[in-house]
Amino acid sequence: MQRYFLNETYEVAKEQGFSLIGEDYHHAVHVMRMEVGDCCYLAFQDQQAIVGEITHVTAEKAELKEVQKENQEKELPVEVTIACGYPKGDKLEWIIQKGTELGACQFIGFPSQTSVVKWDQKKLQKKQQRFEKIAKEAAEQSHRTLQPTVQLLLATTELYQQINEFDHCLIAYEESAKQGETKQLVKTLQEIQPTESLLLIFGPEGGFHPSEIEKLEQLGAKRCGLGPRILRAETAPLYALSTISYQLELM
Amino acid sequence: MQRYFLNETYEVAKEQGFSLIGEDYHHAVHVMRMEVGDCCYLAFQDQQAIVGEITHVTAEKAELKEVQKENQEKELPVEVTIACGYPKGDKLEWIIQKGTELGACQFIGFPSQTSVVKWDQKKLQKKQQRFEKIAKEAAEQSHRTLQPTVQLLLATTELYQQINEFDHCLIAYEESAKQGETKQLVKTLQEIQPTESLLLIFGPEGGFHPSEIEKLEQLGAKRCGLGPRILRAETAPLYALSTISYQLELM
Repeated sequence: MQRYFLNETYEVAKEQGFSLIGEDYHHAVHVMRMEVGDCCYLAFQDQQAIVGEITHVTAEKAELKEVQKENQEKELPVEVTIACGYPKGDKLEWIIQKGTELGACQFIGFPSQTSVVKWDQKKLQKKQQRFEKIAKEAAEQSHRTLQPTVQLLLATTELYQQINEFDHCLIAYEESAKQGETKQLVKTLQEIQPTESLLLIFGPEGGFHPSEIEKLEQLGAKRCGLGPRILRAETAPLYALSTISYQLELM
Repeated sequence: MQRYFLNETYEVAKEQGFSLIGEDYHHAVHVMRMEVGDCCYLAFQDQQAIVGEITHVTAEKAELKEVQKENQEKELPVEVTIACGYPKGDKLEWIIQKGTELGACQFIGFPSQTSVVKWDQKKLQKKQQRFEKIAKEAAEQSHRTLQPTVQLLLATTELYQQINEFDHCLIAYEESAKQGETKQLVKTLQEIQPTESLLLIFGPEGGFHPSEIEKLEQLGAKRCGLGPRILRAETAPLYALSTISYQLELM
């Protein structure tokens, strides 16, 4: 069943009467050909979600009534932020798409010393809009109740400044994997408490510069390995998010 | 460090003298510009691997000497096969690329009832070659000691016939996830023993037809959910493989 994010809280939307407008209206009525009597999920800014049934369709909006609340918890019990050194091509796009499916609540891009791509402010503003759209669509498709946010940084120092805002911070470091480090990820996921925040930092294709690792460790980040195989820049974040879901949602 | 798969066992290659020929020679000498004294990994058919140093380069081959054996175990302790109902576009390509990084030893494609793409024998033969190349390159990049194999089936009955060859078989079923099934994957991964085989079956975009689930369950496959979020056809196999590595390699 189709899912749409509304820009109000449940209470506000309920007061105004539930309705789809703009792009969501166009998608529901013209793309999905939904009609009176058809149902879809509506997800609100306060992470509530309902099943809504279309009661009336006009030229610019579709009105809905609440059928039932959505009961199942769709969000990870901890707040996971994925920070990636800008990788090449469209890799960050699909880290955001897949990472949203896998439950991340925030994505941060930063210019690692080994990042090949160089994005200026203008480029980052265009990317920002595109990435937010990808996150919104992936959140709808994967039935999230939360739309992940995207931060694209101009300088890595902006990342360093944020680290102490997180309860836990891990660096996925290829050298740790090569040296057979296997315990830190498990240790962190067994220690982390519900509602705590976890920042996971990943390098671009070329990996981290040792000085970046040193700085991150000074700021309290811990290195972790993600198994004995060498994962690509775009694969490592998905590995980490999958293991978080396994440890905290399935086990 | 670059990694190449040779088509002999370690013993045979050692007897003949280690050398790179054909595409690997071209890649090492002309693409990577490797010279006498440079090192790379050589992986053999019997899953042994060494660090080799180039001692001599001719017009059609590069000769190497053994520097040391590779010691770290790179393969999952269990044999994981990923079977996917043919998905759209190039999704199977990157399930194979990412799945190889994450440790799968075999990929099977089959025409699920809801598969939109229809591939005939001729098309499948072309795909087969391409997919095997993708698996080989991903295995080299991720430092595997094993090249995953690829089977592209013309009929789903061919999949049904193979199921009893596996020690364990799970079906990733979206309805199970929606119903909040969380225990089967954990149960299986806690029960599975080293060297045992596990078949994981995934549907295409449209999911499985109920009759396919029924047939698979009759054959002994068990349904499992992969968390509360709806994962795309290309994301679910990566989730499963990551959790297998976490449970069996990190924990």
